[in-house]
Amino acid sequence: MTAPQGNALIGQSGGPTAVINQSLVGLVEACMQAAPIREVYGAINGIQGVLDERFVNLGLESPADLERVAQTPAAALRSVRKKPSREDSIQALEVLRVHDVRYFFYIGGNDSAETAHLLNGVAVEQGYDVRLFHVPKTIDNDLLETDHCPGYGSAAKFVAQALMGDNEDNRGLGGIKIDVIMGRNAGWLTAAGALARIGEGEGPHLIYLPEVDFTWDGFLDDIARNYEEHGRCLVAVSEGIHTPDGALVAQSKEQDAFGNAQLSGSGSLGDLLASRVKQGLGARFDGPLRVRADTFGYLQRSFHGLVSSVDAAEAREVGRAAVRVATSDDVPHGSIIIRREGNGSDYRASYDWCPLEKVARETKEMPAEFLRGSNDVSPAFLDYARPLVGDLPPVGRLSDHPVPKRR
Amino acid sequence: MTAPQGNALIGQSGGPTAVINQSLVGLVEACMQAAPIREVYGAINGIQGVLDERFVNLGLESPADLERVAQTPAAALRSVRKKPSREDSIQALEVLRVHDVRYFFYIGGNDSAETAHLLNGVAVEQGYDVRLFHVPKTIDNDLLETDHCPGYGSAAKFVAQALMGDNEDNRGLGGIKIDVIMGRNAGWLTAAGALARIGEGEGPHLIYLPEVDFTWDGFLDDIARNYEEHGRCLVAVSEGIHTPDGALVAQSKEQDAFGNAQLSGSGSLGDLLASRVKQGLGARFDGPLRVRADTFGYLQRSFHGLVSSVDAAEAREVGRAAVRVATSDDVPHGSIIIRREGNGSDYRASYDWCPLEKVARETKEMPAEFLRGSNDVSPAFLDYARPLVGDLPPVGRLSDHPVPKRR
Repeated sequence: MTAPQGNALIGQSGGPTAVINQSLVGLVEACMQAAPIREVYGAINGIQGVLDERFVNLGLESPADLERVAQTPAAALRSVRKKPSREDSIQALEVLRVHDVRYFFYIGGNDSAETAHLLNGVAVEQGYDVRLFHVPKTIDNDLLETDHCPGYGSAAKFVAQALMGDNEDNRGLGGIKIDVIMGRNAGWLTAAGALARIGEGEGPHLIYLPEVDFTWDGFLDDIARNYEEHGRCLVAVSEGIHTPDGALVAQSKEQDAFGNAQLSGSGSLGDLLASRVKQGLGARFDGPLRVRADTFGYLQRSFHGLVSSVDAAEAREVGRAAVRVATSDDVPHGSIIIRREGNGSDYRASYDWCPLEKVARETKEMPAEFLRGSNDVSPAFLDYARPLVGDLPPVGRLSDHPVPKRR
Repeated sequence: MTAPQGNALIGQSGGPTAVINQSLVGLVEACMQAAPIREVYGAINGIQGVLDERFVNLGLESPADLERVAQTPAAALRSVRKKPSREDSIQALEVLRVHDVRYFFYIGGNDSAETAHLLNGVAVEQGYDVRLFHVPKTIDNDLLETDHCPGYGSAAKFVAQALMGDNEDNRGLGGIKIDVIMGRNAGWLTAAGALARIGEGEGPHLIYLPEVDFTWDGFLDDIARNYEEHGRCLVAVSEGIHTPDGALVAQSKEQDAFGNAQLSGSGSLGDLLASRVKQGLGARFDGPLRVRADTFGYLQRSFHGLVSSVDAAEAREVGRAAVRVATSDDVPHGSIIIRREGNGSDYRASYDWCPLEKVARETKEMPAEFLRGSNDVSPAFLDYARPLVGDLPPVGRLSDHPVPKRR
């Protein structure tokens, strides 16, 4: 089954990351070098742009422009959130056919893998030889098969540095501070907050993840215990936490003040948690409790100028690997995956692929070995995450040499 | 009036900044070199630590530790929000006296200047020769007399880079995005969002500041106009916006779902604005409007690892300047101010002082020449802010060379 001659098309889908354009540029670079590929097109707004036939010629971009694009967050081709119907898939394939597209690379999460999978089904039915590949990206780090996802390391670095600063802030002014971090189904990104911890008794003191059932009593008791011990408490909470009955805390009636249902782009979960802590613990401590909540929101996925260099390099390489695999003779479709070869200072990645259907739709939760109790992560998780995030800035503290009192 | 011989005491007060410890370390370094100063103490938790006599000996810190502290956000001496009563001031002065403190440096905003001013009043009454100095810091940039405040440049850099990324995010996925930025009385920090704008038609498309009365009709019309023109709209809003009657929008009844009164550490203003935009514009456009709000919260004042190098250097120098002025023969008290010498590529700062009472309590709004209409800032403001923030990372865009349609 020789790799077909023809054009390549690239699309981006779903929420952005700080390094999703690294994958785009890696794809363009490798497509330009690949013998069977003639033109390299981009679809504006992903599958919607395929349906509308809104294509741009990426082969005409200069290397300098591409390099600047690679270092810019969010989808340079513009993104979309759309699951194609069977009708859409048939129409999209027709568009690929008239443009002689023989390679389609879709950069995105599990929904994007599903889109590639749907298109592939139609292509197989119709006997049209097009190689459909999913190129992984997601700050949520929740794709199956791959060790980790491009985009995660940079978002995790943002979360860790935010919590490092917030820990100093909380130490300086006291009180209880709650930070709400993205991750609907899996706690990978919230868990990365643990990388901020510089020692025993330092924040984040508590970490709540969707992998562990959330209870209000447990939450309040945990905070009270830490507040008593340290005079302060810094808490990292995933937006996807849910009570044992499976109900999202973010969708509790009390906080739905404006009828907003989305978890991100709203501060309501943070406000709900802060309000409950004030109500629930106010009576246990003297004086008014200082409770604040921040929701990291979109900053964690598209902040400009803060990336993990390992993440950026891997995102680029994932794009190149997709072209390598797609233009090999025997792989008609697949999702690119990263394998971890060694850990700690020996960490390096290798690249492989798996069938689309293994990645489509599903999400990967954090395994039990990465969790600790109901409110923390394990050292094994820290070992997993550290090489992906890279070095964090050091924290300086005064030694507090006491001066004897004179009164 | 010879500079007295004795010990120096340093305190930190109010909300943190990314570079407040640069000023602390600048003070310690200069105190160690100053002939009239013997020991250099720090008060833990500012004026509260003075009252409680909780002092540490900063002269025993190693230069390497101090350098790491300088590069760590938030108050290394720990902070406080406390306005001393007259009783407190008398007691505090008594503590200074028994420790032979002849130099007191208080790093903070206008409330901290007020504290120094109160202590100075008591010292003058009692004839105790102690030099009371306010060392400016605030991300709000709202102190009188000084051209700008240490801490502002770094917070402004954070805001600008956040909005640069958010502009790409908003471009990739469309819709209306509202970002709520700190600044109760003055819009300096929100205004810095304008530095993110990379060209005509780029976000932030709208900027709302406390200096200009806010009206719901104007807000909705502005957004509708931009959304029609660009298919998207990125909005920067100061937490301190108020309607023409002076009422804070953030304290509108509708959003006070949990009885929270504070503006920061809550996402409620953002949620209120997003909800009103959905309600108010939903009928004007086909299909559901995608509206999201983020509140930058504490990240903008204490994110670790993102500083303006100009801001960091100036914050250090402000500390050194305070010791220079305080140990000169003829200045018993004052607030350190920065003067701007030249602008653009000729920008540099010089350091001077003014009487405490000129800085205490008051805040400085943005002048009319820095505003443009009801929803933007002027080029003069950009000229003012650019040198304080320094270079921002470049943004790469595809050229979008069109591929002809074939269907």
